[in-house]
Parts: sequence; C-alpha cells; structure tokens
Amino acid sequence: MLRIKYEEAVAVMEKKLIAHGVTADRAHIIADTAAGISRDGVYSHGINRFKRLILSIDSGICDPAATPECVAGFGAFERWDGNHGIGIINAMACTDRAIALARTHGVACVSLRNTNHWFRGGTYGWRIAEAGMIGIVFTNTKSNMVYHGTMDRVLGTTPLVMALPRSTGPVVADVSLGEYSYGKLQLADLAGKQMDKPAGYDSSGNISRDPMAVMKEARLLPLGEYKGSAINLMLDLIASTTSLGNSACDIRNIPGDENSVSQTFIAINSRAVNDAQEEDEIADRLLSHLLNARPAPGFSAPRYPGQKVLQVRKDNMANGIPVEESVWQAILDLPDAPKSTSGSWL
Amino acid sequence: MLRIKYEEAVAVMEKKLIAHGVTADRAHIIADTAAGISRDGVYSHGINRFKRLILSIDSGICDPAATPECVAGFGAFERWDGNHGIGIINAMACTDRAIALARTHGVACVSLRNTNHWFRGGTYGWRIAEAGMIGIVFTNTKSNMVYHGTMDRVLGTTPLVMALPRSTGPVVADVSLGEYSYGKLQLADLAGKQMDKPAGYDSSGNISRDPMAVMKEARLLPLGEYKGSAINLMLDLIASTTSLGNSACDIRNIPGDENSVSQTFIAINSRAVNDAQEEDEIADRLLSHLLNARPAPGFSAPRYPGQKVLQVRKDNMANGIPVEESVWQAILDLPDAPKSTSGSWL
Repeated sequence: MLRIKYEEAVAVMEKKLIAHGVTADRAHIIADTAAGISRDGVYSHGINRFKRLILSIDSGICDPAATPECVAGFGAFERWDGNHGIGIINAMACTDRAIALARTHGVACVSLRNTNHWFRGGTYGWRIAEAGMIGIVFTNTKSNMVYHGTMDRVLGTTPLVMALPRSTGPVVADVSLGEYSYGKLQLADLAGKQMDKPAGYDSSGNISRDPMAVMKEARLLPLGEYKGSAINLMLDLIASTTSLGNSACDIRNIPGDENSVSQTFIAINSRAVNDAQEEDEIADRLLSHLLNARPAPGFSAPRYPGQKVLQVRKDNMANGIPVEESVWQAILDLPDAPKSTSGSWL
Repeated sequence: MLRIKYEEAVAVMEKKLIAHGVTADRAHIIADTAAGISRDGVYSHGINRFKRLILSIDSGICDPAATPECVAGFGAFERWDGNHGIGIINAMACTDRAIALARTHGVACVSLRNTNHWFRGGTYGWRIAEAGMIGIVFTNTKSNMVYHGTMDRVLGTTPLVMALPRSTGPVVADVSLGEYSYGKLQLADLAGKQMDKPAGYDSSGNISRDPMAVMKEARLLPLGEYKGSAINLMLDLIASTTSLGNSACDIRNIPGDENSVSQTFIAINSRAVNDAQEEDEIADRLLSHLLNARPAPGFSAPRYPGQKVLQVRKDNMANGIPVEESVWQAILDLPDAPKSTSGSWL
C-alpha cells in the first residue's frame, strides 16, 4: 500500500483531467474532491474511482465540457439539468445552489437530472453541514436490486446521505440501501469468503451468498426487506419525478456504463433562527447515549456516523493517503490525451 | 369483528372527546382522522388507539386545550411548539402549514416539539400528496431500540413517511425503523408464535425471538443493522435539533406514557413548475416495473406502498369499518366526563 501525499494526488489527477479535455478550474475541483474522499478514509469511492471517470470521458458517456444549468425554478425549489457532464461538477453545483437558496429561503430543494456518478454522496452532505445546515441528499442508480419479494430488478442501491451540522464536527450518514454494498461483496470475493446472509440471486435464479455470483447477476437483495424497499422506491420516485429525469429502471436501459442518473439535494437552514449551541446540546445529549451504550458481544465501542472522519483525515494529511499500488500505477499510466475507444468497467 | 359505519365511528368518538374537554371543532378533526385511519385499513393506528388518547387527556399528559404555535421562522422553515396538546391537532396544523409555505416558497420544512402521538404518520403524508406535493414526514418516539451493535436503548422506532402525488392516487410509504413493529410482535404473541428472526433482547440480556419477552424489555433490534440505525439516528437528530425539542433518549426520561416528542414535516412543491403529467409518467414507468416483476417463491404479486388503500377505503365506506368488539365496547364504555386518575397503557 502506497501513502500518497494529498497535494501529489491532486496534482497528478488534475494533470490527467486537463489532458482529457477538462478545464483547469474544474480539474482542480474534481481532483480535490476525489483525493479528499480517500483522504477522509472512504478509499473505495475516491482515488479508486478516478480511472473510471477518465474512461467515461473517453468513451463519450460523460461530457467534460457540459455545464449544469437551472432549467426551472419556483422559490426554493429548482430543477437542474446536468447535461451529461461530470458528476462531481454537477453535484457540487447543485449542493452549493441548495445552500445558497436555503440562506435566502430557510429551506431548499434542488433536483438534478442527466448527471453522472458523484463518487461519494457524503461529500455533498459534509459540504451542506459545514455550511451550518442539515443536508438530505440522494441519488438513484441503475436498477441492480430486487424489490422485497420479487425476482426481477426494480431498485438501485440508492445512496442516501443525511448530514447534521455541529460545532465539534458534523454527523454524516452515507448509506446505500442494499443488504450488502458492492464494496463489501468485492472484499468478500477477494478473501474467498461467502457472505454471512443471503446477498442476492445467482444466474440460475437461486438466492445465493456467493459474492461473485451475486455481483455478476446484479439482482441484489434490498436492505431491510419490505420497509427498506419502500424507502428506496420513494427516494427514486422523488429524485426522478422532481428532476423530470430517469428512474432506476430507465437508467438500466441506457447503453454503456451507468449514466444519466437523477439526484436530489435538500438543505434545511434551521440555524438561521435557532441558537446553534442549543441545537448542539440536543445532538450531543443523544450522541452521548450512543457513545456510552454497552457494546453487544463481538462489537467494538459504538461510533456515530462520520465520527472517525476528522481523525482519519488528520492522519492521512500527515502521513499520506493509502492507495493500492496497482490503482495508483493505473492512474499514472493513463494516457495524456483522450482515447476514443470504449473503456471497460467491472 | 364488528363493521362500524364511518359516520357512526366519527360521531361516537366526537362525543367522547367533547365530554373530555375537547372543543367541537377539534373533536371532529380528531374523530375524523382516527376513523379515517381505520377506514383506510391501518386498524392498529386508528380507532384502536382512541381509548389511549382519552386516557392521556384524563391523566394530564395531553392538554386538550393547548394550541400549537409558531415559535420562530425564517422563510420556509418554521419551528413550532405543540404545547403538549393533542398529537393529531398539532401534526395536522404543521402539515397544513408546510403545504401553505411550499405553495409560496416551493419547499417547506416545519419542525414541531412538545407534541404527542400522531396516530398514523401516513395520514400527514397522504394530506401533503393530496395537495399535489411530495411529503417527507417523520417523528421520533421514546427510545425502545438498540443501535446496531449496542446492548442499550438509543433509538426509537422513528416512523418515516414519504409520499408522492399522482393523478391516479398517491404512493405513500409509512414505515417504522425497527426490525419488527410492536404491532407484528403483538400479533405473533397472540398467535403463540416466535418471530422468524431475532427481534430484540430479553430481560436477561439475551437476543430473543419471543415477542412478549422483547416487548416487555423494549430493547428491539433496529431495521437494517448499521445502515438502518444510522438513518434512524439522523432522523431523530434532525427532528429534535431543528425543533429544539426532545430526542428519543430525552423522551424516555419523561414520566408517564410517551409524550413530548419531536416531528418534522417537509413538503416539496415541484409541480409548481413541473408538468404534472410528465411527473406521473416517470413514476408510472417505475411503478409498472415493480408491478410486473415476478414474485419470489412464497410471495404474492408485488404492490407499491399505499396501493391497497383506496380499494380498502371504498370497501370500508360501503360495508363499515372492521373493529374488534372489545375495542369498540371499551370506547362506548369510556366515561362521559373526564377522570383525574392515571390511565394504564400497554
């Protein structure tokens, strides 16, 4: 495992992005975001995803020159079109717009269609929380999961992010709504292990715990059975209808790597009227109940969502970001000019 | 099982409410809401809960004369205080206020503290959807559930409601975030059955499938393990901090039956700018994928959340609302004047 300096990671990715047709300003935002995600300890969704972004630009799925635009708006609700541009740029624009609208209106909702993978949803939740607001942010994905009690794909993994501002550091939950994430399935597969619980269907239509069989078939089981399925469906319905964009089932029918997804960004600026310290005290009291709860057998001390981020960030800034040597080499090996061939993705 | 005419159910409950100090206007809203919940097929949360409301008035936990008020506001965010009044009245006021604010601002968030049980959360989601808007509504409860990997109570069941307007009838998910609801545990206990999966801790601190042991101990297991726990925690943090109200752990420390909970009502008025038919088409396309999905072995045809409501409503309006004879008799037997003794609740 390498430990790459944050500044070096940003500089290398910036250079590759510029070589593939991204403007310098945008290249900085994207590289800074991708490096920042790994710096914060979410290794699966930062630098590890960078090569896939370059391939999606080269294959034409993602237009590096596209600019997100507000198509329609009414007060604190706005509908944006990502115009098939880079996911991070689009999501960041809508996050910042939701924050700005909530400064004026107290609350805001920005819905975005025709956008691409945002890397890690938590990034946008953290950004809203660091602006002193509550963030509720979600994206749909292509359908790769059954609805509870069905055998066919209906739902995507639908990452849901909820973020709370707090003077001692935000609380940010960033969860996808499958029983197992693709990341966990991949780790188990690498370790040659079966999953503890049924994970999805295999190609014969049987429920399976074999991670590779389940990943190949892309008929995962949803989190939380019928309740989790219902929450997931509603989030997709909200993101796709308010943005007039694609739902999970529409996205699956679009050729190429997943693209043209729909996202929703909600910001709640309660601290415009509430005393911040009073809000903090309420949150801290609940969190202290969690942190002081006795761990169940086999579990370590409880943590709140996002608790370890600031500490991991500090360590990775001091000692470099852990990156698999093969992942980093693949980035270094990316051509310094766009390729017109289609990329290949897992 | 009796079948009580809707109008009769409303009239009987109205009369009891008025006898216990509720004004006629409010009595109508409350009786209409409680009867409407049972009429729509959610028997556990409508007429069945009515006696408990009267007892909470008689015991002084719930002040029938209290009026909810807006304490502070900024644009489309408002903070309300329920002043320990009747939960249905408070929740209805905040639902209607969120709808009104979203008509002006496109989006709205109303947070409410010091309120009491709202009967069924879905009622408020349906109301927002019937006003042509998306509703996201949630309440906290007293802590009766562990956080994933802890042995102590941290979370409440935290019902979460999401509602989508649609010309052919809303889609409304109304789910609590425990592995099993108290309703399911009660049904299994009545049938003398153990739960299929671990449901919570028993009084000896062991994980148990025995519904009565789990209900008595009130250390249920959360839905969806760590992901479900994180979502639940965030909803409680949002409801309690934005309202400057109580969180689940605060509520547990308040004497008497559960009271003084915190709730959040979000309305998104995307149809102020979006073509309603276009939104409908996107939703219908996703829902048709769900409805046409092959059922897994042992499951019946898939349904979307809230799908059966309009049909059940029609049947119950024509043939009367099914009510257990003992439940109805207990309502008829309620005294026609307030009692000052404490009520007893399950």
